[in-house]
Amino acid sequence: MKLIYKGKTKDVYELEDGNYLLKFKDDVTGENGVFDPGANTVGLTMEGAGRAGLKLTKHFFEILKEKGIPTHYIDADIEEATMTVKPATVFGKGLEVICRYRAVGSFLRRYGMYAEEGQPLDAFVEVTLKDDERQDPPISEDALDMLGILSSNEYKELKDVTKKIAGTVKEELAKKDIDLYDIKFEFGRTQDGQIVLIDEISGGNMRAYKQGEYIEPLQLEKFMLEK
Amino acid sequence: MKLIYKGKTKDVYELEDGNYLLKFKDDVTGENGVFDPGANTVGLTMEGAGRAGLKLTKHFFEILKEKGIPTHYIDADIEEATMTVKPATVFGKGLEVICRYRAVGSFLRRYGMYAEEGQPLDAFVEVTLKDDERQDPPISEDALDMLGILSSNEYKELKDVTKKIAGTVKEELAKKDIDLYDIKFEFGRTQDGQIVLIDEISGGNMRAYKQGEYIEPLQLEKFMLEK
Repeated sequence: MKLIYKGKTKDVYELEDGNYLLKFKDDVTGENGVFDPGANTVGLTMEGAGRAGLKLTKHFFEILKEKGIPTHYIDADIEEATMTVKPATVFGKGLEVICRYRAVGSFLRRYGMYAEEGQPLDAFVEVTLKDDERQDPPISEDALDMLGILSSNEYKELKDVTKKIAGTVKEELAKKDIDLYDIKFEFGRTQDGQIVLIDEISGGNMRAYKQGEYIEPLQLEKFMLEK
Repeated sequence: MKLIYKGKTKDVYELEDGNYLLKFKDDVTGENGVFDPGANTVGLTMEGAGRAGLKLTKHFFEILKEKGIPTHYIDADIEEATMTVKPATVFGKGLEVICRYRAVGSFLRRYGMYAEEGQPLDAFVEVTLKDDERQDPPISEDALDMLGILSSNEYKELKDVTKKIAGTVKEELAKKDIDLYDIKFEFGRTQDGQIVLIDEISGGNMRAYKQGEYIEPLQLEKFMLEK
């Protein structure tokens, strides 16, 4: 198998059957040794973070499969920290789609004149460009359409499926008395043109709180998967 | 008459009949002595800039009046550098609505991964919050609605009227062989609930080019109004 991409938190290999293998690493995004799902740099390495992220991803992707929500997921090997997925191309050079239930992070930094920290938001969806150099700028439906990244119809589809997936994760977390504040996803298009969720759903993609206390990604995996 | 607001480029007074008087100043926005319509600081003072801005504003507002596009404009006194306007309240704490025909300025700084400098844009409209502290962040239709600043219907109305006004300015400039690259507007709601263009339309609100050369605000006023 051939390494085709070295990412911040995972590497991607092409398999001989045309599918892809994602290798989850123990690096997590953050700054100055503090985890931050919105950061563009690897902040720290945590023993077991890759495997924990994969376990939670497998958990959520299998729930989504049952619900008929399309993802690139085929199978996972926890021991090897790898996930086999269908090939999919990203929109433009990659987008992040964020769903927010509370005003925190970059939302608050931008709209703090109108929102208080932690204020409830009604599954607010926004899209940012994956562009480290320009600090992942937010981009509107009109701009995505005009720049040929995503049509207006695809935007609406993406917004709908984002709300469904985020709602599913929120419900699952609520079963363990955990509140989802925000979560980010990546999407792609499969060879037959379907829009599917790609990448992962783990602690590194979301801000989760229990009784007002932030839960670290590794801790979240424990809370969610322990019987 | 009572001073009610001291702005970067103009002061606002309340008149006894309930209307407002805008006093245009000779200060223009920019940084380090260089004019920049997108800047939040007063960069320089140019003798006659206030009167020149008012002359051009009067010119455009009277054209808009003929076209039946609603503005807050009542009358102007060039000698005194004042404009009498209908009272109007801004959306939230003030928005800027930008219409772009070329990829320059903050658009290029945000979306330079997908756009080349000067690339034509199809009357692309975007909204930013007036918030100096947070560098006037762009905000989406959904966020404006959710934060109670502007409903989705009002957003559509604002986008339509912005395209009409920008199109009118573009046409007028084209008559003098001048290209409009981008322009920013402010809107408000009058007491009877109508959305109207407020503030001004002058060189300080737009980037205009002649044969590929940028035209300074004072120069633009001369080109546009000289017979």
